[in-house]
Formats: sequence, C-alpha cells, structure tokens
Amino acid sequence: MIDPTALRAAVAEGFGRQTEWLAKLASFDSTRGNEAPCQDWLAGEFAARGWAVDRYTIDEVEIAGLTGYSPVVDADYSKAVQVVATHQVEAPVGRSLILMGHIDVVPVGATELWSQDPFRPEVRDGWMHGRGTGDMKAGVSAMVFALDALRRLGYVPGSRVHIETVSEEECTGNGALSTLARGYRADAAFIPESMGHQIIRAELGSVWFRLRILGRPGHVYAGVSTGSHAILAAMAYIEALKGLTAEINAEAVTHPYFGAIADPVKFNPGKIRGGDWLGSIPSWCELECRLSVLPGHSLADVRERVSEAVRRCAAALEAEMPALSWIGFQADGHVFAPGTEAEALLAGIHAELLGRELEPLSMTATSDTRFYDLYYGIPALCYGGNARGMHAPSEAVELASLQTTTEVIARFVARWCGLKAA
Amino acid sequence: MIDPTALRAAVAEGFGRQTEWLAKLASFDSTRGNEAPCQDWLAGEFAARGWAVDRYTIDEVEIAGLTGYSPVVDADYSKAVQVVATHQVEAPVGRSLILMGHIDVVPVGATELWSQDPFRPEVRDGWMHGRGTGDMKAGVSAMVFALDALRRLGYVPGSRVHIETVSEEECTGNGALSTLARGYRADAAFIPESMGHQIIRAELGSVWFRLRILGRPGHVYAGVSTGSHAILAAMAYIEALKGLTAEINAEAVTHPYFGAIADPVKFNPGKIRGGDWLGSIPSWCELECRLSVLPGHSLADVRERVSEAVRRCAAALEAEMPALSWIGFQADGHVFAPGTEAEALLAGIHAELLGRELEPLSMTATSDTRFYDLYYGIPALCYGGNARGMHAPSEAVELASLQTTTEVIARFVARWCGLKAA
Repeated sequence: MIDPTALRAAVAEGFGRQTEWLAKLASFDSTRGNEAPCQDWLAGEFAARGWAVDRYTIDEVEIAGLTGYSPVVDADYSKAVQVVATHQVEAPVGRSLILMGHIDVVPVGATELWSQDPFRPEVRDGWMHGRGTGDMKAGVSAMVFALDALRRLGYVPGSRVHIETVSEEECTGNGALSTLARGYRADAAFIPESMGHQIIRAELGSVWFRLRILGRPGHVYAGVSTGSHAILAAMAYIEALKGLTAEINAEAVTHPYFGAIADPVKFNPGKIRGGDWLGSIPSWCELECRLSVLPGHSLADVRERVSEAVRRCAAALEAEMPALSWIGFQADGHVFAPGTEAEALLAGIHAELLGRELEPLSMTATSDTRFYDLYYGIPALCYGGNARGMHAPSEAVELASLQTTTEVIARFVARWCGLKAA
Repeated sequence: MIDPTALRAAVAEGFGRQTEWLAKLASFDSTRGNEAPCQDWLAGEFAARGWAVDRYTIDEVEIAGLTGYSPVVDADYSKAVQVVATHQVEAPVGRSLILMGHIDVVPVGATELWSQDPFRPEVRDGWMHGRGTGDMKAGVSAMVFALDALRRLGYVPGSRVHIETVSEEECTGNGALSTLARGYRADAAFIPESMGHQIIRAELGSVWFRLRILGRPGHVYAGVSTGSHAILAAMAYIEALKGLTAEINAEAVTHPYFGAIADPVKFNPGKIRGGDWLGSIPSWCELECRLSVLPGHSLADVRERVSEAVRRCAAALEAEMPALSWIGFQADGHVFAPGTEAEALLAGIHAELLGRELEPLSMTATSDTRFYDLYYGIPALCYGGNARGMHAPSEAVELASLQTTTEVIARFVARWCGLKAA
C-alpha cells in the first residue's frame, strides 16, 4: 500500500510541471479537423513515458454500423487523429483501467468577446483561463500526471492501463467509439471531465439535426408569406421546436433523475445560414439544432417527434417539408447505475481527500462516458475537478482542484490496478 | 423622318440575331465580382459597331464622397468593370442621349429550385428564361439592336449617344454613379428595365444594413435568455424591424404615389449567418436587411428609425446594442416629375406602337434611374417590356414585347437625336 502522504507530496512536486504541460496542451487549437498537431505532441509525450503508442485516424476503423455511432458531416476522418497509449503488464496484480480524455475543443465563437487569446492560456487568481482548459485538457493532464506521481515514487500500475486521448467528444463521440471498435477494453474506465468533484450518475443524450428550408424566392418588391421566405420560415420552425421542447420538459418533471431540474431538456438552434442577396426573398436557409434526449426516451422516438413538429409547422406555413438530416450526435441519454466496485473505490478516495461524500450529478449535457457502460459493459466513472465557463470565453479551470483530482486518480490507479516497482 | 414601316421591318429583320445575342449575354454569370467576362464581351461588341469604348473599373473613379454614393462591402471594385461606348457626332442635329442598362444579376439562390441551368437561357412559348434575361439583359439588347436597326436602314444617331452597361445596380448603384462621376452627360437618359411597357413615375429607395449581434455564450446545458442567444436575439430584432415597417406603412397610406399600394414598404431580412457549434450557445449572428424608403422620407431619418428600433429591442432583451452598419444601398426614393419633353416623346411613340396611353408606375423597388434625374438633373426615362419572375428561378422575358421595346427605342433615338447618314 502506497503511503498517502508521499503520494500527495509527489503530486504536489509535479504540479508546477503539470501546470506548464497543461498550458502547452491548451495552446493547441484542437478544434474539429485540427486535432493532429495536438495529438502528435501527446503521442510524443506518451512514448517518452515508455508507453506503447497507437496513433490512428478514425477512418482507419470500421465504426459506421456500430451501436452508438453518430453520422458525421463536414469533417474529414482521415485527419481525426486518436491516440491510445498502453502501459502493458505481463503478470497483472490488479484490474485493468482505461484513463480517457478528449482533446477536441469547441470553436471560440465571436472573438470580440474574448479578453485574451483563447489559445494562450493565462493563470489568474489560481485559475487557468483559455479554450479547452476546463473542457477537458485539465483532466487529460490529471491522468498523465497521476501516473507520473506514482513513477516518481518508484511505481507503475500493476495491471494494464490505456491512456487515451480522443476527439469528436463535442459532436459525435465517434473518437471514443473508435477506441472500443479498435479493441481497447478494461475492467473500468475513468474520464476526468471537470465535474466539480461530483460523479455523473445520469446524463442527457442529444440529437443534432439540420433543416434545409427552401423559400419561394422572388424580388423583394413583392410581399411574401412567411412560408415563402426561407429565413422567416426558419423562425417559425424554431418556434415549433421550442414548443416540442416545452412538451418534453413537461414530461420530464416525473423523471427519476431529471425531474428535480427545471427544464432539463435544451433546444439550441445553434447555427444558421440563409439567403444570398438582400434584394431577393431568401430562397434557402439552413438551420442546425441540438435537442437533449432524456434517459428512457429512445432516439428513434425523439427523431420522430422532431420530424413531426417540423412537418406540422411546414403544413401550417403551406410550405414544402424541409429536408431534415441528422448531422452529429445521436447520443442516448443514460443512467450509470450506482453500486459498481469502481464507484465505491472512487467514493472512498473522494471522501478521504475532500472530507465529504461523493455526490451524484444528473448532467444536462452529453459526455463520452456512455460508450463504455451502455454499449460495452465497462463500468465507467466520469469525475473531475472545478471548472467554469465551459464553451464560453470565460472558460477556466481551478488549479488547486486540478491538483486534488490528480491525487484522486493516482490513488485510484494504485488501488484499482495495484502497483509494481517501476 | 424615318419611315416607321421600314424601321419596324428592320427591327424585325434583326430580331433573330438579337435573340441569339441576348442568349449569349444572359449566358454570362455576371453576379457581383464576376462582371468582367460579360463586360469585356460587350466592349468587343460595341467596338465592332464603331463606337469609342471606355472600359474601366469603379476603383478608377472617385465616387466615395458623392451624393448618391452607397457604401460598399464584400466587393473588390478593381474587378467591377463598367463600359461606356460612345457614338460621337461632330455637328449634332438633335439632342444627346444616354442609353443605359445594368448587366449585374442577382445570385441564383437554392439550385434545387431551378428547372434549368440559370445561365443557359431557354426559349419556351415565346419567353426566354434564365437569370438576368428580364432584369435586365433584354433591355441591354434592345438599346443595342435599336441602333443596329437604324444602321440597317443607313442611319446613325444625329447627336452623341452613350451606350452604357454598368454593374452594381442590384446593391448600390455605384456603377451608374461612376459613369456620371467620369463625366458622361446627355440631354436625357433612357433605361430599358422590363417595366411592362409602363414608365416609372415614382420609385422607392432602400437602405441595406447589417446587425452583428453578440450573445453571452456558454455551454448549451445551461438555460439562456433570448438576449444571450445570438440567433434567438436575431429573431427578436427581425420582429422589432417588422414592427417599424408596419409603422412606416401606416404612414404611407396618405403618400401621393404609394398610398394606393398596400404595404409598399418592404422589410427583407435577406441574409443571416450565425453560430459555429451546436453544443454552444451561439455567440454571434450577422443579420442583413433591406428596408424600402418612401419618396419624401430622408435617408438620415430612416436610418435613425432603424437604429432606434434596434436600440429599443436591445434594451428590452437586456443585451448590448448590436453593431449596426450600412452595407449597400443608401438610395433615396424619388418621384420623376411628369412633363419632360423626353417623356412626352416616349409617350407618343408608345401610344403609336401599342395603341394605348403610357401608364405611370409607382415601383416598389429601386433602379438606377434616380442618379440621372435626382442628382444630375438629367431627365431620365425608365421604360421597357414584359418580364416575370424577377430574382426568381422563373425569371423570363417576353420576346414579342422585347421586339416592341426595341422598336420604341429606335424611334425614340431617331426623333430625340435626329439621324444622319451612316
């Protein structure tokens, strides 16, 4: 049994280096399509630690027919680099583990809203600010530096550990799926998303879809109906889908995991492109939307309800049904059943280190965690430290909390996998 | 005095060739930024007729400070080719004339809505279909082939004629302005837009503007107010501007030229771009709009009313005032006072050829005509034949009507400019 005080000191000793490493990791603009430089740097870091590195792109793996797969548009999977590093053990003394984090980040959006360069992380008042710091490059640093701390004490995990950095978490989850399709399995998976030291008990799924709305174009000098004006029609479809969302939220009040949250299901008309010329009635408008999916609601049902809401609105507008396509997340909501050995271990460590019980979280977003538990039967823990401003220009991660998370993971590895001399 | 029957025969004799020539002209995709190949072809056609050709680009002319100038965005004026061909006469026997047409066309929009290639004109049932046929390449063919018909009878105009093909009519009018700034003047201007054999008595102006709306972005898992969601906020600004439009239309009922038309003032939110990522609350949305301007309403007042409507909406949304910029047409509405000699001459010819009185039209769109009359004191006639589906995939021009228009122009030139032996 490793000495807790020594482990704490080892994590603390490495934390200056960890902070620099995180700043380097967060300096990569690893938005979709731009993962390679970030992943190649990580592959080098992993190889330098003596781990076997499998660097591949998603297009090298057959995933299209698999459960959990989401359709992909506007992306070239020959550029979607994934990295799985493996610490291999010949005679295991414990259980195997997947430590997994995503390195894709969401776009920065309107640059006027940033008070710093999104990809030049800045530490202020104990928080590191910058795109991707909280979601979730801090977590990636925690899993790497937890192993570094053990090594500093002369140990390596006593059974197999895969250290995985994926992309596509923010739009499909196909990066996580590709690791599983490629054969990486373990007795548990641990994903250190910045969850405020809570564990995800339940999470919403989501569907992404696009409406291509056609108008009946002409010169602007003539008056037109809403249904003939592709942009005004888009507004009507947004209203219709807000109505559907309210209907689903009314059903959600009795949900065992989301009933206590006001309006947990979110509808986001998050991207719009329409029209070419101000002197013409717009002939087209593409509206892209995201809608949450409650655990227990099937994706097929949700998609049918979306289709029906759009169909009814089109009829009311006396317009053609827009082309409706599913363009990203087709992610099930999921409840991670309590009572696994992995969770019990994490809960114990959390209580020891934070002095309070581990609280479960019903998260109104979607993470990669579902793949392990729901589709591959691998108990999966999503747990990490404090962050704020996820997807916002104010994104930041609390460094003290990150250090604690690193220590949690180090202890978890020591007890789950056992230890061997390095 | 030229023999009307001979002139009619000469126009008819050339009409097969004119139809082919129009089809060639309409085969150029002369949307904004792509004018050069079309204009270069025209310059060659004009030079072959013995006219002196001035081919220039708008950036060669100082227009920015001039009355009638509209701000330009998203265009490179070093590519905006204009052509002024001149038939010069040493000892004029009549009055000088500008024959002017625009060759810029509006974008085709959603290609699914076209049953033909927009730039491969097709003749069906006596109508030529294709982008730009009606608006207004047919008119350009009429002014050229009117002069050809005279030539076929052995005549040329007895005083100076400028044959001008401009661009930018569909967004600023800066092409027309550049010809005037470059010094081209005459005793009258004739613009053969497809006006259904009516003459424009009054036309609306228009203003084009862009709102750059910023949200308060974040992860979609949190609920947000409309004012924080740039795309939902854009919908609120659209509603506010619809309200302003209704207010202006309520005032328009007493307008001497537009009072008889229901809701003559049109608001078109014609182009929208917003958001980057469905998992993020959109941080930005750019909404581009066009609003008509009644004759008698000053541009400054209309702009102030737009600003105020946006300001009030922003306050109601508890959002920052969007950046508001004026990005195209800042075009005055105008009434072309009746009673000019040029109009009297046209009215007489129209009545002779069509057997009915020339009707004045209050047009709910904007043309280049205002530049001549309003800003440079040149009597200007906007008159041409039948077209339909302006700015729509159904755009077409009636060939019989075009032939009549060609004859009208030929007679007008003969009487306005006088004739000399070729």
